[in-house]
Amino acid sequence: MQAQQILLNSRPEGVPTPDNFKIASLSLPEVKEGEFLVKNLWMSVDPYMRGRMIDRESYIAPFNLGEVLDGGAIGEVIESRHAEFPVGSKVTSMLGWRSHYVTDGNEHTKLPDISLSESHFLGVLGMPGMTAWTGLTRISELKAGETLFVSAASGAVGSIACQLGKLIGAKVIASVGSDEKAAYLKSLGVDAVINYKTVSNLSEALKEAAQEGVDVYFENVGGEHLSAALDNMNDHGRIAVCGMIAQYNDTVPTPGPSNLAMIIIKKLRVEGFIVFEHWAHYPEFAKEMGQWLTTGAVKAEQTVYEGLENASTAFIGLFEGKNCGKMVVKLA
Amino acid sequence: MQAQQILLNSRPEGVPTPDNFKIASLSLPEVKEGEFLVKNLWMSVDPYMRGRMIDRESYIAPFNLGEVLDGGAIGEVIESRHAEFPVGSKVTSMLGWRSHYVTDGNEHTKLPDISLSESHFLGVLGMPGMTAWTGLTRISELKAGETLFVSAASGAVGSIACQLGKLIGAKVIASVGSDEKAAYLKSLGVDAVINYKTVSNLSEALKEAAQEGVDVYFENVGGEHLSAALDNMNDHGRIAVCGMIAQYNDTVPTPGPSNLAMIIIKKLRVEGFIVFEHWAHYPEFAKEMGQWLTTGAVKAEQTVYEGLENASTAFIGLFEGKNCGKMVVKLA
Repeated sequence: MQAQQILLNSRPEGVPTPDNFKIASLSLPEVKEGEFLVKNLWMSVDPYMRGRMIDRESYIAPFNLGEVLDGGAIGEVIESRHAEFPVGSKVTSMLGWRSHYVTDGNEHTKLPDISLSESHFLGVLGMPGMTAWTGLTRISELKAGETLFVSAASGAVGSIACQLGKLIGAKVIASVGSDEKAAYLKSLGVDAVINYKTVSNLSEALKEAAQEGVDVYFENVGGEHLSAALDNMNDHGRIAVCGMIAQYNDTVPTPGPSNLAMIIIKKLRVEGFIVFEHWAHYPEFAKEMGQWLTTGAVKAEQTVYEGLENASTAFIGLFEGKNCGKMVVKLA
Repeated sequence: MQAQQILLNSRPEGVPTPDNFKIASLSLPEVKEGEFLVKNLWMSVDPYMRGRMIDRESYIAPFNLGEVLDGGAIGEVIESRHAEFPVGSKVTSMLGWRSHYVTDGNEHTKLPDISLSESHFLGVLGMPGMTAWTGLTRISELKAGETLFVSAASGAVGSIACQLGKLIGAKVIASVGSDEKAAYLKSLGVDAVINYKTVSNLSEALKEAAQEGVDVYFENVGGEHLSAALDNMNDHGRIAVCGMIAQYNDTVPTPGPSNLAMIIIKKLRVEGFIVFEHWAHYPEFAKEMGQWLTTGAVKAEQTVYEGLENASTAFIGLFEGKNCGKMVVKLA
């Protein structure tokens, strides 16, 4: 049995390019006792993967040159010698970027039956949704009546953070990079949307939208967005630092905001987090989010690319604003 | 009765200069029933006063042009028609930068008898000491066995933070701007001292001193110090943001560190605080600190300027590294 895989061909300098990736064929071993064969149906591309393409110490090991990439995936068991994972089981794994693989089931979870596409376990019911929920409920502790500002707000995490903000009872202000995305967020009930590419001064635009000030900033972008948030935070505001996508492709270090003293003046709490450390709370999250999805209180947009050969294009598209909601690749 | 006062003559551009200040004489009113006359013995100059010289909204109102400055002071009641403050009482107030004043006692506290100079109520037993204690015990929650990094470590707050760090059982690394100050901190038992003016790379110097990484950074400086700390923080480290003195005299905004993404990668908590919001804990602090001073577990250095006419020179000296420990002005 031949499997297709995407390897890291070279480490990106700046924005990733197609030649950083290589598709390769691999002969899979026979399925031995206690193992099963998975055909991947969906795989995830996420901004955090960019960090793993750099050879440095971080909260997750870097990808190795010439080796297959990995990341979230949903697959179907098509051959099995493992009692817990019979043929036909749907599983989540961290073994994306490949068409098929043989496994002993370590770090695999069987999916429950849901009426929605299984791909949502890579998005709203998976890592990005859990990230939005963790940042709002566990890190920033957003409360009803407060004002929430979300950057990269049409993305996989941001679009869920905006909707959770509304469910919590906050006023929600979103920043996006196109008028289409702004319209999408408006349709989700967000109170005000800023297209940061068309405003002349982001801090002034945020001040206009949040005249009462910002209590919680859900940080996905960094740079000018962080600076604008610091300008407009209220006393004792909280900044949940989830990502700084504006800097992931920097080839030279970009200076930070010049107004960090606002952290003192406004007595802010700025807290970085990695969702995996909060995974013990996944069942609680999944129960709540499952209900919201079922009732339509949360809507989960996806941008779908087709075919493993387009996975790198989908990944590169994350840094070009190509996705609305969760970017996923349909493999089969 | 004539009192001498220091007025804000002009708003500083950059580092304050003597002509930003003006000494003026004022006739005091008679002491009416319920009032008393105070002769100031000591006044405080503190870096935070620089922020009040800018006409902007902050946690404390700006000074007005042409009006007397204010700040912490210790005085003696020399005439009284107030039962609670008889002649001879020693009082703390926020009515510094003047020789005498008449008051109804609002926001005045009578000093207890102590065997040390009353001036310590402007330092180790006052706002700066309470700031160090609050930042370590309430904001960063420093624990025994952890590593603490303190910038501006020979200052009024920093020198106490270093000593409290040792009492808590932490390894303490200090940054200062002269070899004399380094020797002073060594004499206090600090584990390693960096003279940031003589090292070629502050981040590398901190890495050398803190090979086990930094768990808590007590931030007084900003800029390159913050960047070095971010580079060397351990996972789940805490940064108590007390001040950013490197930026107080900026005439153009100075960009922040380029490595803020460390907040995510290392899951840091960065928290600004203003000591006045924690003042309810002053009795607890004062009891502990009083004992440490009595036993010699904490030593409180002071740099003393004499005469109200030298108060502005003392204040300007804060930004030139002229003080070791608390800078105070002896008025009588």
